[in-house]
Formats: sequence, structure tokens, C-alpha cells
Amino acid sequence: MKSYPSLTRITEADIDEIALGAAVLGTGGGGDPHIGALMAKRLIRLHGPVRVIGVNDLADDDIVPPVGAIGSPSVVIERPMADDELTRALAVLEEHTGRRPTVVMPIEVGGGNSMVPIAAAAVSGLPILDGDAMGRAFPENQMVTFHLAGYEPGPVVMVDHLGNDVVIHAIGGARSERIARAVTVEMGGSATAIDYVHMGAVVRECAIPGTLSLARHIGRILLDRDADPSHCTPVDRLCEALGAFRLFDGKVADLQREVRGGFTRGVAHLAGLGADKGGTLRLDFQNEMLLARVDDRPVAVTPDLIAVLDLVTGRPITTETLRYGARVTVIGLPAHSWWRTERGLETAGPAYFGYDVPWTPVEELARQARPASQEENA
Amino acid sequence: MKSYPSLTRITEADIDEIALGAAVLGTGGGGDPHIGALMAKRLIRLHGPVRVIGVNDLADDDIVPPVGAIGSPSVVIERPMADDELTRALAVLEEHTGRRPTVVMPIEVGGGNSMVPIAAAAVSGLPILDGDAMGRAFPENQMVTFHLAGYEPGPVVMVDHLGNDVVIHAIGGARSERIARAVTVEMGGSATAIDYVHMGAVVRECAIPGTLSLARHIGRILLDRDADPSHCTPVDRLCEALGAFRLFDGKVADLQREVRGGFTRGVAHLAGLGADKGGTLRLDFQNEMLLARVDDRPVAVTPDLIAVLDLVTGRPITTETLRYGARVTVIGLPAHSWWRTERGLETAGPAYFGYDVPWTPVEELARQARPASQEENA
Repeated sequence: MKSYPSLTRITEADIDEIALGAAVLGTGGGGDPHIGALMAKRLIRLHGPVRVIGVNDLADDDIVPPVGAIGSPSVVIERPMADDELTRALAVLEEHTGRRPTVVMPIEVGGGNSMVPIAAAAVSGLPILDGDAMGRAFPENQMVTFHLAGYEPGPVVMVDHLGNDVVIHAIGGARSERIARAVTVEMGGSATAIDYVHMGAVVRECAIPGTLSLARHIGRILLDRDADPSHCTPVDRLCEALGAFRLFDGKVADLQREVRGGFTRGVAHLAGLGADKGGTLRLDFQNEMLLARVDDRPVAVTPDLIAVLDLVTGRPITTETLRYGARVTVIGLPAHSWWRTERGLETAGPAYFGYDVPWTPVEELARQARPASQEENA
Repeated sequence: MKSYPSLTRITEADIDEIALGAAVLGTGGGGDPHIGALMAKRLIRLHGPVRVIGVNDLADDDIVPPVGAIGSPSVVIERPMADDELTRALAVLEEHTGRRPTVVMPIEVGGGNSMVPIAAAAVSGLPILDGDAMGRAFPENQMVTFHLAGYEPGPVVMVDHLGNDVVIHAIGGARSERIARAVTVEMGGSATAIDYVHMGAVVRECAIPGTLSLARHIGRILLDRDADPSHCTPVDRLCEALGAFRLFDGKVADLQREVRGGFTRGVAHLAGLGADKGGTLRLDFQNEMLLARVDDRPVAVTPDLIAVLDLVTGRPITTETLRYGARVTVIGLPAHSWWRTERGLETAGPAYFGYDVPWTPVEELARQARPASQEENA
């Protein structure tokens, strides 16, 4: 991937670009970009631009809470975060630990959960870290680089729109996730959460750097109004810039989606269009797109990234806004190297989610598929 | 009811009497008396007798945490509380509030949950209050006199055997209960909990006084080996001493019981014996016995107390240890006046539990039933 400029501050004008790009990296999850962007823009308007600091600029003793929304994106769309949830979450954390946070970070890259920490930074006056703990979005709390590096979730602070708050100290990330998820359900299906609060030294070790800047870069590529549409579609531009694999063009022919256990879960079937005519792509998701299979053959498997984009505009479509009849392109991207380790695959590979499919790198699957799809197109 | 002696200290020798009597007042719930008694006896043996103080002896600024088990009694039987749960719960409370507890109290009267605070008092060296917040046992957290008097649950501290702990600040007792119950399920179905921590002044207002001494009194009546068995059965002695109503003698003919949502729920049908031959009593329970109907006619309705006793020994039987074929007597007792108010009935009356039965005082139901049952027996 070519290099891209680093953010140093985030103004209202940057928000839509970041939200759009984050929704691509969010692989359909991480919350609704539109709702998140509205909140971030309003709070920047009220409190001023947000300062951005790089992962390598963290001091050892910085206290870096990742702030985000937990729960079902379907719920967040219908009941956006209350105004005071962000300040209350930071206040409960400070009261509980007796230490004042110094830098806010995104726990993941995703339309909503890239916006929530920007909003939290705006409202609290703290800078935001240009980096996150997934390099994408994932549905469960322990699916973070901190967990892969062996760090505990620490106190999990959860607050809801009604004024309830909960602090969880759990032994191990998986248990922490289970308790937090149960609390989320009782908080009405979504909540504001802080977990994996670490010192600057640990965050420098674990954070995937530059992901907010990368999101802005992707957003700019998609929104580039100077690009020549006859020459190259937004999807082509994006795939070229990211080194992504264009896996399938199709129309949503069948969609099952439900909100259960604090997640949005489902399956979509896409009927092929153009070069993919006659084929079917099946997409499995749990908040995020996790598995793409063409005619039963895996073409991209979690933890690699699967993004569903509008066929014409290249705009990312979340698992929540996917709808019957939509014409889309599915693209695949290699996951960050953190996820391609044994512990990464154990934590967020296909077996964890119950898919009886081996993990094969998306670039390898693309290589295998090329001769076959050329035959099909012959 | 005749007066009974007040406890001033609790030694190992008192435990079985208290556990037995508390299990009668616990109406089938409040945890298993045997497991709780074993724990309390062991901790008194290790740490010495527990000092008991009366409700009126509380100082205004005493800090009085009710300590108990939350969850399904079925789980507690199979996985007793870990040794360090009590001290950890008190430590988390102190760390969270910055204030040291001075007196431990039982949240309810029930076999297990009368023992847990005694054990907590033994292990912490604090005195225990001779009083509780229900005067019986109830399945949900907000079913306490504090709630009836309009006090909030405050911080709810929960710890489990694995070392996880959670602190909940919820708006309102019902929400607090829902979140705590969800956490209980994720903690494996039972946990140690502290909620409704109040100052001495509030506890003097709300606690139902003398219930530990009353439990000991009941235990002594049942265990009285000097009593003449030809003259009077333990059940008769108990009914006479308590002014209780002997509602039905029968054999458990049908029993459905399941652990669901952090509760033990079920229905038992008793086929009548002796004077009740030919009749059927249906018992509905959710941790506690909540409704008794003879041939569809209510004979005792929550919040009034319904206890199931062994027909011969008078020993109380919990909803968990009730078994097919058991020969039992069902007795009814008027609830404390706290529960017979509008708010009391709203909180723990039949409608709350989903029973389409009006609440009528057990003494009134007994009066109504007398002519009818005399006809049946004619």
C-alpha cells in the first residue's frame, strides 16, 4: 500500500472522510458511520477540533482508555448514544481507578466506533490516538491486540443512556466479554464501554498505528470528485490503493438478520452480476462480515477483512444497512499480522465463530480462484 | 406469637437451629440451609463466635452491608461459595466506597442467606444484625423493605468463585436486579452479592427486627427432643408457636423444576393425605414458594409465607430439595406488615410474578376455607 498523510488534528470537515474509510475497514460492523459522524461533528462544533497523536508519541505513563459502543449496531441506529454517556464513562473510570486519562483511543476501526472516541476526545478535551487495537472491527471485546499480547481487560466501565453504570473486573478477556455482553443486553442492547485501559508503554507495543489516518485516506479515495469516472470506478481506485481483492459483484438475493444475545447476526446470499453471473456468494456475519464463500468455496475468511461496497459509489455497507436487492461488490483485504498468528487465529479465526472452514490467507484464496474464475468467464 | 429470647452471640452450636428456623421462614428459598450451615460452622470454628446486635442498637453512622448469595439455589448446592468470596466482596465494597463496613446484616431470612452473613461476620470480625430486609426470602433483589421505603440499591458488589468482580450502579431497584441477574448467569448461576448498603439510621427504619432470633426459636421448637411425640407433632408445635395455618397434607405427585434466567422455577402438585385425601394442592415457585392453590382455590398467596415441611419431622423442604413422593405439610404465615401495603404488594404480590390471582391475607383465606374443608371431611 502506498503511504498516506498522517492526521494531526481532526476538524468537522474530516469526519465524513474518516467515517467512510473506517466503515470500509470496519467490515460491515463497528457501528453505523452516519450516526457516529453526526455525533462527532456536533461535539467538535461545540468543543473545537481534536488533536491527534501518533502511537510512537505516547509517553510511558500516558493513560489511554479505548472508548466505544458495545452491543448491536441495530440498536444504536434506533437509539443513539445519550449526550452524557461519554463524559460519564470517563468520569466513572477516573473515580474507579483514581487516575485521570490522558489520551483517548479507538478500540477498533469501524464507522461508529471510530467516531465515538473522536466524540469522547472532543467533549473531554483529550487528544486521540492515531491507532486502534484491531486494525478492523470485530464483534467481541477480547478480539484486540492487547489480548493477543497477553494483557488483561482490566476494569471494564459500562454506562447506558438511563444513567446506570457497571464496573467489571474479570479474570481473562473471554469472561470479561461474557459478563459485559450480558450487561449490554440488560442495558437495552447497546452501551458505552471502556476496556483494556493501558499505560502508554503498553499501547505503543500493541496499538496498530495510523488507522485513523488510513481511514481518512480511504474516505478521500472514495469521495474523490476529481477522479475520471469513465476511467476507473471508486471500487477499482480503492482496490488499487489498498491492494485489496475484488471478490464478487452481486445483488443481495436473500438476507436473514436478527438481533440476538447483544449482536446483529445473519447470512446474506448474493446472486452474481457481470463476470460473476451465475455464481452465488454467501456472506456470514456477526456484527462484522466474517466469511465469504462463492459456490461453497471460501474466498475470504475472518480475521481477513471482508467489506461490502456499493457497486457504483464504492460506499461501504454495514451488516445492518445491507438490504434485499442492493448491488454490491465484496472485497477482501489481508488482516494485520497480529491476527495471522496462532493466537490471533484462535481468538478471531473461523473456528472461534463456529465456521467449519480452515483459514487461508485471502491473497492465497484469490490466487487459487483466479484460474477457475477465468474458466467460468471463458 | 409468644415472645422469644434474643440472640446476643452466635456460636457453632446455634447454627443448626438458626439454619433450620430460617429455612422455615425462607419459604423454600434463600439457599440451602445445610451447605450454608457447614460454611458458617467452619468459619466460626476458625474465627470465633459472632456478636449479634439488635436493630435498635445501631448507631446512625454504622455502615451495614447486607451480604448474601444471589442466583439459583440449585447451583449453590453443586458449587458452594469459595472461601474468599466473602472477604473479597467486603474488600471490593470498601475499596469502591472508601468506607469500612461496621455491621453485617442478612438481606433475607432463608436457609443459606441467613448463614452467609453469619459466615461473613465471622470471617471479618464484624457483628451481625438481628434483623433483615424481608422477614422471609424472596427471589429478586428489589424485594426488600429498603425498596419499599424508597431507598435505592446503591452500589451492588458481586464476586464469584473465579475471582471476577462487578460493581453496579443502577437507577432503581428493578433495573439493578435485571443487571445483577444477568451478571449472575455469566458468573455461572450463583455469586456473592452485597446490595442496599445503608447507614445505621436507615437500617433502623427499614430492618425487620429480631428475625435471626426468631429463626433460632423456630429451630428449637422443631428440634425439641423433650417434646412428647404422642401428644403433639413438630408441625403442630410449630403452628401453635407461630400462629401459622396448616393448609394441606399431601404427597408430591408431580414436580416440574428448571434452572432458568438465574432462578430455580417450577410447579409441584401434591395429592392430599389424611383429612385432605382426594384434594390436590398446586405449588408455584421461583426460588421461593409463591402460591398455593387447593383445587384451584388459592390458600396462600405471596407475599404471605408458604412453607413446605416434612409431615413427620416438621423439617422445612426447599424448592430445590422437594422430591417426588415426599410426604409434606404446607403451612401459611402472614407476611410482615411492610409487605401488606400497596407498594409491598406491587413489589412482591401475585401480579408481579404473573399469577392471575388476587392477594387475600392467608388468615382470611383460612377462614373462608374452614367451612368448605369441614364439608369435604364430613
